[in-house]
Amino acid sequence: MESVRIGVVGIGGMGSYHAQYLLKGEVSAAKLAAVADVAPDRLKWARENLGEGIQVFDSADALFAAKAVDAVMIATPHYFHPPIAVKAFEHGLHVLSEKPAGVYTRQVREMNEAAARSGKAFALMFNQRTVPVYQKLKELIESGELGALKRSVWIATSWYRAQSYYDSGGWRATWAGEGGGVLINQCPHNLDLWQWTCGTPSRVRAFVAFGKHHDIEVEDDATAYVEYPNGATGVFITTTGEAPGTNRLEVTGDNGKLVLEGGTLTFWRTRVPASEHIRDYKGGFGEPECWKCEIPVRSGGGSHQAITKSWIDAILKGTPLITPGQEGINSLQISNAMLLSAWTDGWVDIPVDEELFYAKLQERIRASASKKGAGKTMSVEGTFGV
Amino acid sequence: MESVRIGVVGIGGMGSYHAQYLLKGEVSAAKLAAVADVAPDRLKWARENLGEGIQVFDSADALFAAKAVDAVMIATPHYFHPPIAVKAFEHGLHVLSEKPAGVYTRQVREMNEAAARSGKAFALMFNQRTVPVYQKLKELIESGELGALKRSVWIATSWYRAQSYYDSGGWRATWAGEGGGVLINQCPHNLDLWQWTCGTPSRVRAFVAFGKHHDIEVEDDATAYVEYPNGATGVFITTTGEAPGTNRLEVTGDNGKLVLEGGTLTFWRTRVPASEHIRDYKGGFGEPECWKCEIPVRSGGGSHQAITKSWIDAILKGTPLITPGQEGINSLQISNAMLLSAWTDGWVDIPVDEELFYAKLQERIRASASKKGAGKTMSVEGTFGV
Repeated sequence: MESVRIGVVGIGGMGSYHAQYLLKGEVSAAKLAAVADVAPDRLKWARENLGEGIQVFDSADALFAAKAVDAVMIATPHYFHPPIAVKAFEHGLHVLSEKPAGVYTRQVREMNEAAARSGKAFALMFNQRTVPVYQKLKELIESGELGALKRSVWIATSWYRAQSYYDSGGWRATWAGEGGGVLINQCPHNLDLWQWTCGTPSRVRAFVAFGKHHDIEVEDDATAYVEYPNGATGVFITTTGEAPGTNRLEVTGDNGKLVLEGGTLTFWRTRVPASEHIRDYKGGFGEPECWKCEIPVRSGGGSHQAITKSWIDAILKGTPLITPGQEGINSLQISNAMLLSAWTDGWVDIPVDEELFYAKLQERIRASASKKGAGKTMSVEGTFGV
Repeated sequence: MESVRIGVVGIGGMGSYHAQYLLKGEVSAAKLAAVADVAPDRLKWARENLGEGIQVFDSADALFAAKAVDAVMIATPHYFHPPIAVKAFEHGLHVLSEKPAGVYTRQVREMNEAAARSGKAFALMFNQRTVPVYQKLKELIESGELGALKRSVWIATSWYRAQSYYDSGGWRATWAGEGGGVLINQCPHNLDLWQWTCGTPSRVRAFVAFGKHHDIEVEDDATAYVEYPNGATGVFITTTGEAPGTNRLEVTGDNGKLVLEGGTLTFWRTRVPASEHIRDYKGGFGEPECWKCEIPVRSGGGSHQAITKSWIDAILKGTPLITPGQEGINSLQISNAMLLSAWTDGWVDIPVDEELFYAKLQERIRASASKKGAGKTMSVEGTFGV
């Protein structure tokens, strides 16, 4: 196989974007072969804009049945990522899904199991992993430069949305249509990068407000405290209700702290580990000498094409994925744990009790004021910001 | 009365500092008349260094009985601030106490009641209230510039201490001798400024680690989530175990956010309130225009002498205090609530249940590994940093 025939399932905002860069040949060896959607207006758009060579299907099932592709990219609303991926694997197709992996961990676990059974290349569109400043942060932690993790605090409140954003689609910000708010829609990138760099917490205690700043039923404000297996602690704060927000990640280790804000990464590096100084210093007051180190970081990164390229390379050459699909459950564990902690007003261990979360989610879906979007592929235009 | 005769009770680090600047005449109309301490070495130091005109007593009671002063400054270990203040009020004396107001709210409430009965001038040494950047922060909030409070996040982790600091006195970092750790010793200034600028939370959920970074029995690491009466939320993070720490306070309101870090105050000011933009904006994506405003702030401030001067002026002229003593309970409510939340693994309302807190504290005092410092006035040299 010299190139990969790709079908894009869901051609709203992100799906049509993927289709168009594939059509332009921006990812070598990736050939757009087909698209699928349930919305007539988007199918019409596809026939008029993608050219005669691209097959157009009115469902993912029809696409699968036609056996016209080797791989699919999934860009439907969140709930449908896992079931469509599972079917694709069953048809022997490789899968690249948009984030989040899904809405609840049970469906994502089942997707991961189907991926493993299929042996196909499975990736998730966590394109922020290609941003150099996050890669550098991860490298400084994993190489041991920072020392053992002590604390991680991410103020990720730069997700402001007006009411008109939520009013633009009946499925939006509903339990039935979207399955959550800021944690499932805006924060998957943050939460993936958080677990990718600092690891998965062992337990979570979160404080979540639903419709606090907007007329919506899902969460638009969350503060979470987490504990990591080594005893380190963390805080994650997010909202869509504050302007201007903040995007500042501080990670403290035994050798100092890393601060990522405004695109720059600063390493406040102690000359001796704090744990050694605490033990050995004899002077009463005093602290380790500390250097402010400005870490060089390349600009750019974050492109969707880079993730798609990594997936194509994995298919054709067996090279490692930047964003293995199985890792998508990690950030979902964290956001599910935050919601479950708020719903139960208590601690939640990770991995979360997938049946309990699912049951609590169903309660909210049943009580949902706005169910009209459920089960349909609605426009996701613009919601998957970089 | 043209001047005020002052007795300093407790002449360890802070008390001897107060005595010396009074002796130098740095606070007009304040005359050092006497000192009291229970430690023979400090009484010897006083006789040799303060001059013949200064009376030296081996207890606060002896000082009171001599009727040689109009007012006292209290700089003993924390537990003794309230009982000595109560006796001073009963002797008709004005009182300026070091921070914290006390260790548990019951004793501080009793002190406040005694102060009210006496009608004397009662102040607390929250000298950080005179730092211009905090005064400006308070003014921007109280004047309405920031709009309704939405969130307050204080990362106050710049309190690093080595083990040798804790080992320098048997009373230190023990439940019996000091009554707590970083929350009662290092953080009273932060917590006072926090409540002074952002108000008192209505409830607290905190996560506190005891002896996490040091060989001590009290807390050296705390993360707290708080809720304010208007629905705003807050986070406070502190530790003595990280180097270098962070001191960054972010306060978000309906008109933007204030960020205080590195001695500078920045107001990220939206042209229209977020609540209006959320309601009125019609464009889907988009947020209020925001200006980065560098707020002019005078340097300096923070002197103990300014607080002492304000207290002397209140005594002689009836002018308002910068730091009314009755407000000392506010920050103690917050730190008591944090400890109680950790001890009970649950929510704690403010005002805290003072009997429950006292009972839980007594449990820890009874189990304390190091009781040798209890009941004695130990050196506090250097522990009351600005």
